[in-house]
Amino acid sequence: MVESLEQLKARVTSYLDTHLANDVDQSTLAASMQYSVLAGGKRLRPTLTLATVEIFGGELTEDVVRAATALELLHTYSLIHDDLPAMDNDDLRRGAPTNHRKFGAGMATLAGDGLLTLAFQWVTDNQLPATMKSQLALELAKAAGPAGMVAGQARDIEGTGRRLTLDQLRYLHRQKTGALLRYAVLAGGIITVQPAAVQRLLAQFGSSYGLAFQIYDDLMDVVGTTTAMGKRVGKDAAEHKNTYPGLLGVTGAEEQLQQALERAKNAQAALSQLTGRSFAAYDDFLAYFKL
Amino acid sequence: MVESLEQLKARVTSYLDTHLANDVDQSTLAASMQYSVLAGGKRLRPTLTLATVEIFGGELTEDVVRAATALELLHTYSLIHDDLPAMDNDDLRRGAPTNHRKFGAGMATLAGDGLLTLAFQWVTDNQLPATMKSQLALELAKAAGPAGMVAGQARDIEGTGRRLTLDQLRYLHRQKTGALLRYAVLAGGIITVQPAAVQRLLAQFGSSYGLAFQIYDDLMDVVGTTTAMGKRVGKDAAEHKNTYPGLLGVTGAEEQLQQALERAKNAQAALSQLTGRSFAAYDDFLAYFKL
Repeated sequence: MVESLEQLKARVTSYLDTHLANDVDQSTLAASMQYSVLAGGKRLRPTLTLATVEIFGGELTEDVVRAATALELLHTYSLIHDDLPAMDNDDLRRGAPTNHRKFGAGMATLAGDGLLTLAFQWVTDNQLPATMKSQLALELAKAAGPAGMVAGQARDIEGTGRRLTLDQLRYLHRQKTGALLRYAVLAGGIITVQPAAVQRLLAQFGSSYGLAFQIYDDLMDVVGTTTAMGKRVGKDAAEHKNTYPGLLGVTGAEEQLQQALERAKNAQAALSQLTGRSFAAYDDFLAYFKL
Repeated sequence: MVESLEQLKARVTSYLDTHLANDVDQSTLAASMQYSVLAGGKRLRPTLTLATVEIFGGELTEDVVRAATALELLHTYSLIHDDLPAMDNDDLRRGAPTNHRKFGAGMATLAGDGLLTLAFQWVTDNQLPATMKSQLALELAKAAGPAGMVAGQARDIEGTGRRLTLDQLRYLHRQKTGALLRYAVLAGGIITVQPAAVQRLLAQFGSSYGLAFQIYDDLMDVVGTTTAMGKRVGKDAAEHKNTYPGLLGVTGAEEQLQQALERAKNAQAALSQLTGRSFAAYDDFLAYFKL
């Protein structure tokens, strides 16, 4: 029986709640890591992995949940470092003070470093086959590293105050947000040992979904409210960040969002056709984008 | 034929020089990562791994060099983040401006994040057996993560200005410096598939060597010069850091250093006896400590 998104999300949060502190050996560091990890959030990335495992009939064993939940550790590190005074200098995240506002920039830097490193521990410290663990660690490193997410962040810093072309902005978004969401979907295929043709379509779905996600995030910074978003809005424009609405206007950005969603749906349909399985669970993820 | 330390070091530096930029996809990020990685340094950690592989008759293939050199990426990340204004706020490293003095704290944070993540990529992105890669990634994550090096850093920040006991200080040093040097030696045993009893002795050698290394570093901060060390000295005392000479005086710290070296030599002798191999190559590493 396939679990709902809410059930999968609850599994992830419960796993984090129970296991995170076990792997941290200093009390302030543990408090700082837990503060951000347990602050809530959609748990979108590990939930995408677990939903994909379920679609392929895989069992959600504790080992699978551990490997999938590693991605939430990694995602949380990226938020903590992104909020630092030396980076975006944000005071508010998920409706609460950011990590460095609570623990200081030094401890926040270490909490991020600890979460990033622990992600690779959780991916490999389980009873899944070694080939699977090694592949997960490699794909996670490529998605999160200096040719993936970290490169996107660097491009974001470097591009701030300069007007990028649409192609440059799409490339930045693919690295900064897309790579990790692409990995989230792909990890479900790795864990259920899918053939290369299926993996390619999973990567395509994840990649298009990730682009849609970042365009939507850009849009919400323009049309959302601080209360609804739990973080300061309107700051992209104030800081001369490159965004889809900044470059194309709200209507133009909405069109690009629709195109990315179309590509995601095409990949979803192709996956159904190729595998004979239902990918209806992905509809719930696509329903996230309400305009 | 066994290579000298200088030859092994040259291999590591040459590998970094040739391969680092290939895995970075943003020019300023690449420059920042290369700036610190190629600034010199003893390459002690990967050299310890490669020397251990050679002792057991293992071949230094390109895959082995890649997996071993990953540790230098990780070590460099720890230096960059440690030097940040939010941490130790250092201006000088290896005789040159620290990364954030050259590239700004935001890019320096990202360069560190990129190097840490790339370390896990290099450990898994090679043709070694999957069981080996998965074990290397796991041990590296445990050594570097929130129950290892990052915990030691947190303990260092938290302990500054408070007087620790000798036991507390030793524990801090084992996490902050010892864990990674322990991994460096252990990795050589993993790559050459040594039995558990040998791995235990390798870990013991690495651990004692790591403690000696940190005590020596503490001592050099008292008795060394800025020119010789390439970094500011005398700063531990100025910043009320907990150190061996601070707690025990120079003579007491030297005694502790000798004890740690004795333990390392005992492990070295036990390794020779158990395996019937010569561990004379470790003598060159032990010769590092000149008082």
